[in-house]
Amino acid sequence: MSQENVQQDLVVGKNNVTELLMSEQTVDRVLLAGDPKNKNYKKIVALCKDKGVPIVHTDMSAINRKAPNMNHQGIIAFCAQKEYVSVEEILSIAEQRGEAPFIIIADEIVDPHNLGAILRSADAFGAHGVIISKRRAVGLTPSVAKASGGAIHYVPVARVANLVQAVEELKEKNIWVYGCDMAGKNVYYQQDYSGGVALIVGSEEVGISRLLREQCDFFVRIPMKGKISCLNASVAASVIMQEVSKQRTREEANLE
Amino acid sequence: MSQENVQQDLVVGKNNVTELLMSEQTVDRVLLAGDPKNKNYKKIVALCKDKGVPIVHTDMSAINRKAPNMNHQGIIAFCAQKEYVSVEEILSIAEQRGEAPFIIIADEIVDPHNLGAILRSADAFGAHGVIISKRRAVGLTPSVAKASGGAIHYVPVARVANLVQAVEELKEKNIWVYGCDMAGKNVYYQQDYSGGVALIVGSEEVGISRLLREQCDFFVRIPMKGKISCLNASVAASVIMQEVSKQRTREEANLE
Repeated sequence: MSQENVQQDLVVGKNNVTELLMSEQTVDRVLLAGDPKNKNYKKIVALCKDKGVPIVHTDMSAINRKAPNMNHQGIIAFCAQKEYVSVEEILSIAEQRGEAPFIIIADEIVDPHNLGAILRSADAFGAHGVIISKRRAVGLTPSVAKASGGAIHYVPVARVANLVQAVEELKEKNIWVYGCDMAGKNVYYQQDYSGGVALIVGSEEVGISRLLREQCDFFVRIPMKGKISCLNASVAASVIMQEVSKQRTREEANLE
Repeated sequence: MSQENVQQDLVVGKNNVTELLMSEQTVDRVLLAGDPKNKNYKKIVALCKDKGVPIVHTDMSAINRKAPNMNHQGIIAFCAQKEYVSVEEILSIAEQRGEAPFIIIADEIVDPHNLGAILRSADAFGAHGVIISKRRAVGLTPSVAKASGGAIHYVPVARVANLVQAVEELKEKNIWVYGCDMAGKNVYYQQDYSGGVALIVGSEEVGISRLLREQCDFFVRIPMKGKISCLNASVAASVIMQEVSKQRTREEANLE
């Protein structure tokens, strides 16, 4: 397991952080001790604003704890654990493999354990990538990397400003959109998943958001016998992903 | 969702903690500020030892934070989030429902998110209970309660000193033992789960421990296509639980 290899990529000092922000690398956040209006920080603050990188204002002792014995000058940055890709790149991976696209859309998943487990299952069940939202959702943080058991390095993740628009673009490419919903019409294993698949998984709090629901071609449900009304989000996603994977394996076997 | 209802049951003060320890209530841990050899604490220390309740030695400020503005006298206790049951009670629930037993055995699951998600899926997929170990495993802590989404209140959990012995006793009752293993011989959905089912889920670190493996009648695997060798433990458990549930539902439909 590669959990030990997953480390926060830390960059320290004014010049290094400036260079990092000017590079192509995705920056998770910048920590700053001192007055952000100080002219020394002007360029960094502007670059962060430009790239949409959050600045966390903190004190010197907090930065000392994060970067002990390093010449950090009161400013450090963490790189994202993994570069994000574009939706087009995910689609081109499916094309390269000669497979119909199989994409997971995580709608406002905030729990890093859930996103990590979804990445792990996406790897296991042959999904080509995961799309997440820039807002109200966890990104590729160290906790997600850890929970993914290394899958973060293999599953491409696209982070988009507007999930509804991303789904509309998938539909234009003839990809069917399935919503995972406990009140769905079809039992998930009686659903046919032929062709391209985009599977939307909602947050545990509110399920799939209204505008995304309107994009769904099918709602599938997992039959449940107990008193609790919904499964863990990553469990629900994984059960359906497994079924898609199973149907695809059978289809390939029939074609041979 | 009942996450808001899940609260740590806190008991404060020497007399109250003593009474709690003398009651039938399961106590998660006792926090003590001061010298445990002080004669005031003698009875509490003896009761804890007797019941196997861990004592955490700490300072007054830590106890003040846990029990603000309360007359705690430097000693507080937390009740377990839920009472444990015996394996026999789980079996009698199956009998009352007129169903063959369906029991999940969690082998050294230490991550509260995983145990919580397993409880949630056990509820959803009609398992009669979960058996966990007293050692090297997470118990029914507040984190597990939260991750279970309320399922902790519906799924009976037995905590045993020796999982191997518990499994031996299940086998004597003609319950088949299935190990979830990525190198298993049978694909999980081609396996017949008729009769009583005990499903063993191993830890993410080492899988199912050797002595428990020797108890398995069948090893089932979930076909995987990616680069990561194993799924999240609760996801793997849930995928197989769902299949058991599906086969049982079909069987009932055929009988009607």
